[in-house]
Amino acid sequence: MNAPSSISHQSVSTLPLPYLVFLGDTTEPGYAKTAFGLRDWAREECVGQYACAEDAVSVGLPSMTPTQAKAAGARSLVIGVANPGGVIPASWIPALVEALDAGLSIVSGLHARLKDVSALREAASRSGQKLIDVRIPPANIPVGTGRKRSGKRLLTVGTDCALGKKYAALSIAQAFAERGIDADFRATGQTGIMIAGGGVPMDAVISDFEAGAAEILSPDAADNHWDIIEGQGSLYHPAYAGVSLGLLHGSQPDVFVVCHQPGRKTVLGLPNFALPTIEEVIDLNLALGKRTNPEIRCGGIAMNTAAFSLEDAEDLMGRESKRLGLPVADPIRKGRAFDALIASCLSEK
Amino acid sequence: MNAPSSISHQSVSTLPLPYLVFLGDTTEPGYAKTAFGLRDWAREECVGQYACAEDAVSVGLPSMTPTQAKAAGARSLVIGVANPGGVIPASWIPALVEALDAGLSIVSGLHARLKDVSALREAASRSGQKLIDVRIPPANIPVGTGRKRSGKRLLTVGTDCALGKKYAALSIAQAFAERGIDADFRATGQTGIMIAGGGVPMDAVISDFEAGAAEILSPDAADNHWDIIEGQGSLYHPAYAGVSLGLLHGSQPDVFVVCHQPGRKTVLGLPNFALPTIEEVIDLNLALGKRTNPEIRCGGIAMNTAAFSLEDAEDLMGRESKRLGLPVADPIRKGRAFDALIASCLSEK
Repeated sequence: MNAPSSISHQSVSTLPLPYLVFLGDTTEPGYAKTAFGLRDWAREECVGQYACAEDAVSVGLPSMTPTQAKAAGARSLVIGVANPGGVIPASWIPALVEALDAGLSIVSGLHARLKDVSALREAASRSGQKLIDVRIPPANIPVGTGRKRSGKRLLTVGTDCALGKKYAALSIAQAFAERGIDADFRATGQTGIMIAGGGVPMDAVISDFEAGAAEILSPDAADNHWDIIEGQGSLYHPAYAGVSLGLLHGSQPDVFVVCHQPGRKTVLGLPNFALPTIEEVIDLNLALGKRTNPEIRCGGIAMNTAAFSLEDAEDLMGRESKRLGLPVADPIRKGRAFDALIASCLSEK
Repeated sequence: MNAPSSISHQSVSTLPLPYLVFLGDTTEPGYAKTAFGLRDWAREECVGQYACAEDAVSVGLPSMTPTQAKAAGARSLVIGVANPGGVIPASWIPALVEALDAGLSIVSGLHARLKDVSALREAASRSGQKLIDVRIPPANIPVGTGRKRSGKRLLTVGTDCALGKKYAALSIAQAFAERGIDADFRATGQTGIMIAGGGVPMDAVISDFEAGAAEILSPDAADNHWDIIEGQGSLYHPAYAGVSLGLLHGSQPDVFVVCHQPGRKTVLGLPNFALPTIEEVIDLNLALGKRTNPEIRCGGIAMNTAAFSLEDAEDLMGRESKRLGLPVADPIRKGRAFDALIASCLSEK
C-alpha cells in the first residue's frame, strides 16, 4: 500500500513530521503494529527506522541513527512499538535521550507518560525538544453546540471495538484522494493520530466535552471537501457506547460505513454480550445520528475478512451485500466491491 | 420538606459530614441554590450556617462561627453559594482560612479549584484538614463490564438538561424511605454529591470510563435495596448525550422516570434543537437501556410545574397521564399523583 499522499495532515493538534520510527528492542512483530501502520499509511512521513537491539523487528524502512535522521529532515522520533503494560522500559531510555540530544522531539502513544521519566524530561529541557503523549487531549476543548458545519463527513462505525474502523477510514480516505477528491483522514485514537500527524484521542476526553471534541476535529470546510473520521467503540458496547455517541453527534456525518468482522459473535472481552447485527447497527446510527444531521445515511459495510481465503471472503461479502442491499467490501483487500462501496459513499441521495 | 432520614450516605467517595454551610457575602438567593438544597435535602447533616457579610442571604439554619460549628460536631465547611464565573473571591478567603484553622475541611463544587488558592493550601497543610473539590472524580475508575449487579435501580432521565432530575431523584428516594424501603440516593453532579455526602461527578469523568463510573456508583446490594440515581443531560442533547448513555448503560436501571418541564420547546441554550417528545425519550431509553438490563421499564413522568398554578398543573398532568398511560406527577408538589408514580416505580412488571 502507498501513503495516502493527497491526505493533508493539518488537525487540531499537530505533530512534528516527518518521523524516525523507533522499534526499541522488540522482537515480536505483534508489538510493532504502530510501526507497520506508519509504514503502510504514512510512508512519506517516515524517513527511517531505528532500533536499540540488533535482533529487533524491522518494518523495512532505511535504518539510521537519530543524528542521520535529523540530517535527513526528521523532526521527531515516534515510538512505533508497544510493550506489555504500556511502560517505557529502561532499555529504551539511552536511545530516546540520544534522539532528544540529536534534536528530535519524541512522540508516544504508550499508556506511560514520557514526562514521568526524569531522564527524558532533563534531555528534552537540555535540547529544547518536546515530549508528546498523543493520549493527552488538547486543552480547552469546548462544549458541543450542534451547529451544522460546512463540508462533508464520513464516519466509520462498528459492530464492536477493534475490528478495523481505523484502517477502513484510512483506506476510504486514500480511495477518495485517488479519485481526486479533497479528503482528510481525521484520527480519534493514538495510532491514527500518529499516522495522521494530529487528531483528538476521543476516549481520553472528559465526557462533558466529547461531542465538542468531535466538532473541533472536523471543522468547517469547503462544500466539496470530505473529512473521513476514524470511529471508536460501538453504540452497543456496554463500556464505550457513550464515546461512540459523542463522536457520532459531534461528527454529524453525512455518510457512515459499518465495520464488521465476520465470525465475531460476542463483544470483545465480554462474552455475555451478543454482538448486534449489522442491521441493528445501521438502524441505531441512523436513529441517533439524525439528531445532528437529518441527512445521515449508510454508505455500506467494511468487512475485515483477514481470517478468510479470498474466495470465501468474496462469497461471503457477495451474499451479505445482496441480503443488506448495500455494498460490502474489505477495505484492505479492495477490488471491485470496494469501488462500489466508495461510489455509494460519494453518491448523493 | 424534611431530610431524607432513611437515605444512607455511603458512596464511592465520602465527604466529611456534618457540614457548616457557608454563605459568603452573597446577597442574591439565586446564587445560594446549593445552600437551599442542603437545607431541604440534608438538613440533619447541616449543623449551622456561616456568612462573611452581615447582609448575606440566610437559609434559616442556626448562625455559628467555624469554632462553634466544630464544637457542635461539624467536620467540614461546605460552600453553599455560587459566584458568577465560579471563582473563589478574595473576600471569602479569611473566612475559609478561619474554618481550616478551626479544624474543618472545606467542600466546594465551584469551577475554581480550592487547591489553586495558596492561602487555602497553606492553611489546610497547617491544620491537617482537606480541600475537597467535588467536581474532581475519584481516581482509578474502572472500565465498564456490563456485569449485572444485585439490588434494584431507578434512574431519572430527561427531555433536556436542568429541569429537575436531581430533585426528582431526591424526592423519589425520600418517598421510598418513607414507605420503609431501603433506598440510597446516588448523586452524579456536584450539588447532589454535596447533598448525598458522596457520589461521582459523571460529566467530569473521562469518556472511556463513563459507564464504569456509573457501575461503581451503584454497587451490588441486597435484592430488595433500591439505588435512586440522579440523571444527567439527555440522550437527545447534541453535547451531552454521551454522558447520558454512559450513565444509562452503567446504571442498568430496572425503572426510569422521565423528567420534563412543560412549556420548554427547545434544548436549553440551543434554540435550533427541538425538544424531543416524552414518548421519544421513553422509547429511546428503553431501546438503549435494554442493552445492560433487558427488564428496563418506564415508571412514569416527573413534571416540573413550578411555573404553573396548582390547578393548571393538576389539569395538565391529568391530561398527560391519560395520554401516555403512565403516572405523571410533580415530585416537589407531591400529592396523590405522586403516590401513584411511586407505586408504579415499585410495582413488579
